[in-house]
Amino acid sequence: MGALSAPGRPGPIITLTTDFGLRDPFVGIMKGVILGICPEARLVDVSHEIAPQDVLEAQLALEAAVAFFPAGSVHLAVADPGVGSRRRALALRAGANYFVGPDNGLFTFALGAGDWSAVSLEAPQYRLAEVSATFHGRDVFAPAAAHLALGVPLARLGPPVKDPVRVGIPVARLDGGQLLGEVIGTDRFGNLVTSVMGCDLRGDLEGGSVEVAGTSLGPPLDAYAQGPDGAPAAIIGSSGRLEIFVRKGSARRILAVERGASVRVRPAGNPG
Amino acid sequence: MGALSAPGRPGPIITLTTDFGLRDPFVGIMKGVILGICPEARLVDVSHEIAPQDVLEAQLALEAAVAFFPAGSVHLAVADPGVGSRRRALALRAGANYFVGPDNGLFTFALGAGDWSAVSLEAPQYRLAEVSATFHGRDVFAPAAAHLALGVPLARLGPPVKDPVRVGIPVARLDGGQLLGEVIGTDRFGNLVTSVMGCDLRGDLEGGSVEVAGTSLGPPLDAYAQGPDGAPAAIIGSSGRLEIFVRKGSARRILAVERGASVRVRPAGNPG
Amino acid sequence: MGALSAPGRPGPIITLTTDFGLRDPFVGIMKGVILGICPEARLVDVSHEIAPQDVLEAQLALEAAVAFFPAGSVHLAVADPGVGSRRRALALRAGANYFVGPDNGLFTFALGAGDWSAVSLEAPQYRLAEVSATFHGRDVFAPAAAHLALGVPLARLGPPVKDPVRVGIPVARLDGGQLLGEVIGTDRFGNLVTSVMGCDLRGDLEGGSVEVAGTSLGPPLDAYAQGPDGAPAAIIGSSGRLEIFVRKGSARRILAVERGASVRVRPAGNPG
Repeated sequence: MGALSAPGRPGPIITLTTDFGLRDPFVGIMKGVILGICPEARLVDVSHEIAPQDVLEAQLALEAAVAFFPAGSVHLAVADPGVGSRRRALALRAGANYFVGPDNGLFTFALGAGDWSAVSLEAPQYRLAEVSATFHGRDVFAPAAAHLALGVPLARLGPPVKDPVRVGIPVARLDGGQLLGEVIGTDRFGNLVTSVMGCDLRGDLEGGSVEVAGTSLGPPLDAYAQGPDGAPAAIIGSSGRLEIFVRKGSARRILAVERGASVRVRPAGNPG
Repeated sequence: MGALSAPGRPGPIITLTTDFGLRDPFVGIMKGVILGICPEARLVDVSHEIAPQDVLEAQLALEAAVAFFPAGSVHLAVADPGVGSRRRALALRAGANYFVGPDNGLFTFALGAGDWSAVSLEAPQYRLAEVSATFHGRDVFAPAAAHLALGVPLARLGPPVKDPVRVGIPVARLDGGQLLGEVIGTDRFGNLVTSVMGCDLRGDLEGGSVEVAGTSLGPPLDAYAQGPDGAPAAIIGSSGRLEIFVRKGSARRILAVERGASVRVRPAGNPG
Repeated sequence: MGALSAPGRPGPIITLTTDFGLRDPFVGIMKGVILGICPEARLVDVSHEIAPQDVLEAQLALEAAVAFFPAGSVHLAVADPGVGSRRRALALRAGANYFVGPDNGLFTFALGAGDWSAVSLEAPQYRLAEVSATFHGRDVFAPAAAHLALGVPLARLGPPVKDPVRVGIPVARLDGGQLLGEVIGTDRFGNLVTSVMGCDLRGDLEGGSVEVAGTSLGPPLDAYAQGPDGAPAAIIGSSGRLEIFVRKGSARRILAVERGASVRVRPAGNPG
């Protein structure tokens, strides 16, 4: 594992995804720690407005983002209901990318391909000298991400972890020819993101009719601009997931549904 | 048109102005795409909290910002009610600066000086391999901005556009010696930004009395600190526009006015 | 005082802490000004969501952040009720770090160690050519920070200031063996930050019982995860201050207290 940082080349990329918000100095402090260890790092915020301690929301944000960053990037993420408890602190290589954060399932999506290795962040020389019980983002995760970006081999950061906690993103399932899924998140525009993947809609389900919480929406449209005025419609969103939207409005508000609401796709030509 | 990026020198600047918000990973994803193409780029956020699909608000933010960035910067902006429709995707050189975004009027303010050229972003080699119907910021605009920053000539990105959509920022007009304008935006502090420019207030109008939605405010003050307690007053703001403010308060809330409210400046010594 | 910026090395760090918010282009504009003067600068946001004109909140954010940035960093901060009045504009060296902002007490925490010098930002060649009455962040503070980062000696920026305005962060005091303090801030999670420092809790006060606004919380816990369900508890937070929190909830909402609420620590074994 060679150094990621080299003179004269652009520095390594470290992305940050947290539930820390932007009002408090927490994110800035993590960046100060990182730049003190790896001055060449290029820092990119993915989101700091993850709902507090919402591990699934953080995982969805990361899953949508990782593929669009150069291979070799280090992805630091913190949504951490267990800070200060005995949950492990993790660094993980999956394929060509690195992940650093609490061992609570945040990185489950990255383990699917099988080519990964992980360690528990216990080596004291790669943590801050004093580790608080409340801010591992600063004291444990930021130093680990910065050292990985410098080129420190993963194995030096701590003992191997063979069984990272896994919390899968919900997946839709076939039931009698219909696809049954659920709403798993929302975005700023009030679009509802679902567990149905665009690539699941093939065969009889291609052009099938979408239903959310009992409301029928018809088949997915090709563009937001095709949506009817003020009424919800379906589309395959930019992350490859089926989404429910209202053109120039909020599907979340108009349908009054939240995470967990049922989503169903019926085969084309089978309206009921 | 030489390369904007050169070894050993600070990389090209790309600014980002969107209505994507900071909660979702959209902005981070665009930055990943940019850094994958132009690793030397220096990324600067102008705003991502533009009101959803508010082309005028985005244009006002850009207009206020562009003059304070070094010549040669690339300004990427997305507030895009028409994503997925047939609206063109635009790259534009105006003077020494570049602009990238939907062809919906966002960059009208930059066309005023006449020295500009524009193209429609159709060349497939400067877009991502797959272009979604919902996220042109990632698939079309980010790659175009990154390639321009790398030094790819504008003309290679697609066929020329001679008639970009224009949506001008409202301007005040003289009527019987009075200047008639309107509120065109607000800021975080609740200040009301108007279509009246400070440089319009000359001759009889210098020191003239400002009225907003029927409330008389007297002539513009020289500093926020001169404002009366709890009552609105006028000032020439930092972008050169007449603004209405309340010292340590919100003019927007206290006056209960929004965009479109009428603003009038009467000549000095002519109170009615 | 040598140059902070040198070819081939990572550029100087400039942090930004303001009450400008992220909706308007103000922060981006300051960054454009900085990069125009010091292209090598690495910019790090500490917070831009400081409550409007809240000098204490800004000072607390800075105090928590500064120690985690490399020595030699330039810290620009603006929360400025007096913009446009006669308050001075300040640049300050304290120890190895630099601070730039209004002279209203923002940097009081940095003056404690005694090794400091300060100037009033009056030299016109280190300000923008036109200085507005409303946006000194752009016209005065950003250019000063950028020039300091370039290595311009502090003394060139203006005449010395021997008496910067001081507004101390409240400190707890001993009274009859009890420690009396107050709530001085809150964070995104609804935690209440107090004027009691963890290092004050020694001797009889070690393991003492904490009371906020009349509600008894018991001694500080070691981790958020130890907090009772739905009830407030105390902890020494990441900045070394005693904090009040509710596990997976908001102490601010549940206790319905704000800044200024009284906090008391009674010696261990003395419940009343």
